[in-house]
Amino acid sequence: MRKSNKKVNAAIIIIGNEILSGRTQDVNVVTISKWLNEMGVNLEEVRIIPDNEYSIIKNVNELKRKFNYVFTTGGIGPTHDDITAKSISKAFNLTYGYHTKAYKILEKYYGKAKFNIGRKKMSKMPIKASLILNPTSGAPGFIVGNVYCLPGVPSILKSMLGGLKYKIKGGKKIFSKSISIRTVESEIAQPLEKINRNFKKVDIGSYPFFKLGKIGVSIVIRSSDKKEIDVCYKEIVDFLKKEKINIIENK
Amino acid sequence: MRKSNKKVNAAIIIIGNEILSGRTQDVNVVTISKWLNEMGVNLEEVRIIPDNEYSIIKNVNELKRKFNYVFTTGGIGPTHDDITAKSISKAFNLTYGYHTKAYKILEKYYGKAKFNIGRKKMSKMPIKASLILNPTSGAPGFIVGNVYCLPGVPSILKSMLGGLKYKIKGGKKIFSKSISIRTVESEIAQPLEKINRNFKKVDIGSYPFFKLGKIGVSIVIRSSDKKEIDVCYKEIVDFLKKEKINIIENK
Repeated sequence: MRKSNKKVNAAIIIIGNEILSGRTQDVNVVTISKWLNEMGVNLEEVRIIPDNEYSIIKNVNELKRKFNYVFTTGGIGPTHDDITAKSISKAFNLTYGYHTKAYKILEKYYGKAKFNIGRKKMSKMPIKASLILNPTSGAPGFIVGNVYCLPGVPSILKSMLGGLKYKIKGGKKIFSKSISIRTVESEIAQPLEKINRNFKKVDIGSYPFFKLGKIGVSIVIRSSDKKEIDVCYKEIVDFLKKEKINIIENK
Repeated sequence: MRKSNKKVNAAIIIIGNEILSGRTQDVNVVTISKWLNEMGVNLEEVRIIPDNEYSIIKNVNELKRKFNYVFTTGGIGPTHDDITAKSISKAFNLTYGYHTKAYKILEKYYGKAKFNIGRKKMSKMPIKASLILNPTSGAPGFIVGNVYCLPGVPSILKSMLGGLKYKIKGGKKIFSKSISIRTVESEIAQPLEKINRNFKKVDIGSYPFFKLGKIGVSIVIRSSDKKEIDVCYKEIVDFLKKEKINIIENK
């Protein structure tokens, strides 16, 4: 992974009827977002769309122009409802067919005798795409332009991110600090707004939580400027102490 | 809830930096989607966007034209980063201010003495909006046009859906059946594709899973036509029996 001083952003397109129908809980957004944070890439939008060629093409074309990186998850398996690779080929106007290297990887993985049509399909993609290697289950993901296509199965996706890291050019890293307190949001809204006005380079978020029957608020401070976070953090802690608000945890 | 025979669709806009940053796992998509399914409303798109006025206005305006219903979650609390109500007012070109009924509800909920500026802010919204009552924590959501604004806290959101049901005009209900089998997707890809071609009104999805160290595939059949599901289901089960593929569970 190389680094720049610019802001670098990304979007995710989750392709999957099973997520939209509520059958499956997506967990890939959290995984990819945290991985991007580490590299100084800011996730700025996520779209969940159906396994539908028109939707895939439209959303990929829209987001690839708007963001530095676009990650897709899902739809690159062997069955009839896996249409991501074909749709991405169309979005980029690229030839869709057997990718020589992917074909060889899968043929080796399954062995010639067991390399059936379904398995062969997993090597069909834009024929000039770069591959994202898959240490878990053989079938690679792929990259065309700034679009990175990953599988939907969380454990397989996770295993592929390690090898992908060096292909991402990160930007300024986003740091964060959080303070959990025993109060309700409406008790701290005014002073927090005042502090927020003084820190233009800092993003202050306030999130109510309910844990073991007790309520509280987490204040999260995020910025690419570590010093600003520290100054802002101190100001918030000072006001909490002054107001005698109980700090449960800070990290 | 009234019913029609038409297809009715919806989109969700999740407003929240905490979801994009990976700090918080969204669970509201599953909740809302399942609730919509029950009413015959098909969730067709989800967007996760930051707490940013421009993004909220742009996405709300885009999706409210495209879908029968749009649900937003998040950003209607008392703190400075809660900007959903103001942004939605701008998107609809409506006056933003204290909503008389919401103000009265919150004043009664907190009592005059404890009704501070932060709490009062939660009654600021498009002044002519309809309210979505909140049995858990007082602060109401609101409706303008076909856009329904709900809070981000999952337990509060859940508690508000019950009262909202009668305001949604549902369409044809989507039914589903699923079969879990002990095999890998690539073993069933070809026959499944063949069956899929024969059932135009049915959506067949295939999803690999890993449970307790064992792999398997769930085949999910969805359609608004219950009879077609039954015929398709039978055809799949017949082929599985013929191929001697072990069925673990069907429902």
